Amino acid sequence: MAEALTGFRPGRRTPAETVPLAEALRRVPAGPVTAPHPLPGFARSTVDGYAVRAADTYGVSEGLPGYLTVTGAVRMGAEPGVTVGPGAAVAMPTGGALPPGADAVVMIEYTAEAMPGTIEVVRPVAPGEGVVRADEDAAAGDEIIPGGRPLRPQDLGMLAAAGVTTVRVHARPVVTIFSTGDEVVPPRTETLRPGQVRDATAVALAALVSDAGGSPVLGGIVPDDPGALEEALREALPASDVIVISAGSSVGIRDETAGAVARLGPPGIWCHGLAIKPGKPTLLAECAGVPVIGLPGNPRSALVVFRLIGAPLVRLVGGCTQPPPEATARARLARDLASATGRLDVVQVRVSEGVATPVFGLSALLSVLTAADGYIVIPEEATGLDAESEVEVTLYR
Amino acid sequence: MAEALTGFRPGRRTPAETVPLAEALRRVPAGPVTAPHPLPGFARSTVDGYAVRAADTYGVSEGLPGYLTVTGAVRMGAEPGVTVGPGAAVAMPTGGALPPGADAVVMIEYTAEAMPGTIEVVRPVAPGEGVVRADEDAAAGDEIIPGGRPLRPQDLGMLAAAGVTTVRVHARPVVTIFSTGDEVVPPRTETLRPGQVRDATAVALAALVSDAGGSPVLGGIVPDDPGALEEALREALPASDVIVISAGSSVGIRDETAGAVARLGPPGIWCHGLAIKPGKPTLLAECAGVPVIGLPGNPRSALVVFRLIGAPLVRLVGGCTQPPPEATARARLARDLASATGRLDVVQVRVSEGVATPVFGLSALLSVLTAADGYIVIPEEATGLDAESEVEVTLYR
Repeated sequence: MAEALTGFRPGRRTPAETVPLAEALRRVPAGPVTAPHPLPGFARSTVDGYAVRAADTYGVSEGLPGYLTVTGAVRMGAEPGVTVGPGAAVAMPTGGALPPGADAVVMIEYTAEAMPGTIEVVRPVAPGEGVVRADEDAAAGDEIIPGGRPLRPQDLGMLAAAGVTTVRVHARPVVTIFSTGDEVVPPRTETLRPGQVRDATAVALAALVSDAGGSPVLGGIVPDDPGALEEALREALPASDVIVISAGSSVGIRDETAGAVARLGPPGIWCHGLAIKPGKPTLLAECAGVPVIGLPGNPRSALVVFRLIGAPLVRLVGGCTQPPPEATARARLARDLASATGRLDVVQVRVSEGVATPVFGLSALLSVLTAADGYIVIPEEATGLDAESEVEVTLYR
Repeated sequence: MAEALTGFRPGRRTPAETVPLAEALRRVPAGPVTAPHPLPGFARSTVDGYAVRAADTYGVSEGLPGYLTVTGAVRMGAEPGVTVGPGAAVAMPTGGALPPGADAVVMIEYTAEAMPGTIEVVRPVAPGEGVVRADEDAAAGDEIIPGGRPLRPQDLGMLAAAGVTTVRVHARPVVTIFSTGDEVVPPRTETLRPGQVRDATAVALAALVSDAGGSPVLGGIVPDDPGALEEALREALPASDVIVISAGSSVGIRDETAGAVARLGPPGIWCHGLAIKPGKPTLLAECAGVPVIGLPGNPRSALVVFRLIGAPLVRLVGGCTQPPPEATARARLARDLASATGRLDVVQVRVSEGVATPVFGLSALLSVLTAADGYIVIPEEATGLDAESEVEVTLYR
């Protein structure tokens, strides 16, 4: 499992495209973005007060105030239009541009009007105090956003501040999702015949693909027929960055999927079968430069495996080198859990008040996943976990 | 702060609307969804093997196999078309419909062909073994999805399995975002005059609104003029579920915002000023049934406060009663942090190898937020945190 996760690293990456800032949330920059000019671009006051020459305030105190002549006022958004000479003070709003000659801003709280046009200052300021330097947020050429990390809300803010209104990002990987199985019918099917099941996997996989930054394309339901699957795959290859097949659950279908994938082209199958429960029959392949994931037939196993292996793969193909952090919680296990060594076990749990209670049920049951708040992974080397042991739960969101 | 978070709970909720399943990810169901019929709807095999009467296998073993006559085979997706009588076995694929008469499926691994048309069975099965009951995933009328919890990928799968292809969800709250300040110019402004800054807050707030399930509307930049702001707010009220004002940063503008909000109608201002750093000048109000948040003028404080107070409010208005879990990490603090009691401090941190290192910088600097991996909150009662203390970091994603 660990090997499958770390070892299967297809080289495919989506090309870059340019998107407007308003559509760039969670998109992955194709490279670092640098500041085209210094930010904020001019020295700004960080407080309401008076722009002064710091030297004019040295030694002042409550008992021995300094007196300065108010020679003007800076308006927000406007050029200062005034210079601060020795013994002078200019009224400043927070965020106003520091006038030439001044090197600090004394807070209004430490001043008082002594007489019209004159203030007294009761605390000294050091040069730079009460001021943001012109390049303090970023100097021209500074990297303001790294490549490979999905853009967060504040990153968009920084880009806007720098006047960067479009971003070069990796195109969303196009992930074509096929469902196979003669028993599988579209979700809109109102009445099922005995033996039929609605396709629960495709819509859930599409959601997981979106979460991973991909663009899901539903390829539809392919009948249990190797020719049909091979043809569908061959047709999807040119327009896909990743192909996902939620395989029919019978042994025969699994083999047919592997056969179809093998015939599609080199390098072909990378592994078939993972030491993971649920999820053993997973197939990983690369055909003509397109990674292909064959998922177990039952929806629950398919979703567990796709979350662990498929979603990171979609991110990788989409150029994401710094995946966003998962929501996790530490909890005490409510009961013993058995596990076979040499196999990674994924156990669904509810979490309440620091206690993780396993949700059991056959792997065919989707309700186990909808009832769960998250899952724990029992590593390959463990033979199980004792009740009361501390576990890390990966939480669903 | 705690009071502001828990105490300010406007009653506004968005109405319900119906959306197709493919667009329902993260949407908030307006009420619980129940299964219209049992799921899977028929008894299914969970293994490849033979459908049998369990009683026919009692007492069999490797040494003393039982012999059963193969009377047919079930095809995937098809009605069984055969009944299992005493002494009979019917070949089953995983997921196939259990034929009438059978009450268990024996795995193929525990059988062998004894002669054409006859199998030997070397392990007994109990009734129900190898079978999912017709209502094991859900009985008709069972709640399959709760109201108020944003839909997760697996929830969409469950709904698809149940044939529920549209969902009643709360409409996304329309959140109108205003920027104010004579110094603020649109991000597309190529060259700034000294004193001008680009609007960094609006696009970042819009992203935070989307993350909270809202639909952001950029109301534009309003000049520092109480009449202009009041008019803009009055115009936005009828079409908004929440209004957010990133206020000018000078004292005067803050007062003007409060004045405009107060004149817009009851119940008016709920609180003005929060014991939080950064974020003190935050204003919370409700005007004519629309919650209004006045944010501090500088982008960094505005984003910190909106994340703590605005995003939960947007979720609340959007009917979300079970917010998705945040990504968090436990870490050791790299250095002492001072904090005033009676005030909640939000400190930006980088996190690496279990160590949280504070990112310091003036509250006017956006780069502090883009450099941070997350933030820690120093509670009101604390006077600070010692180096090496364990902290919980809320991680940005």
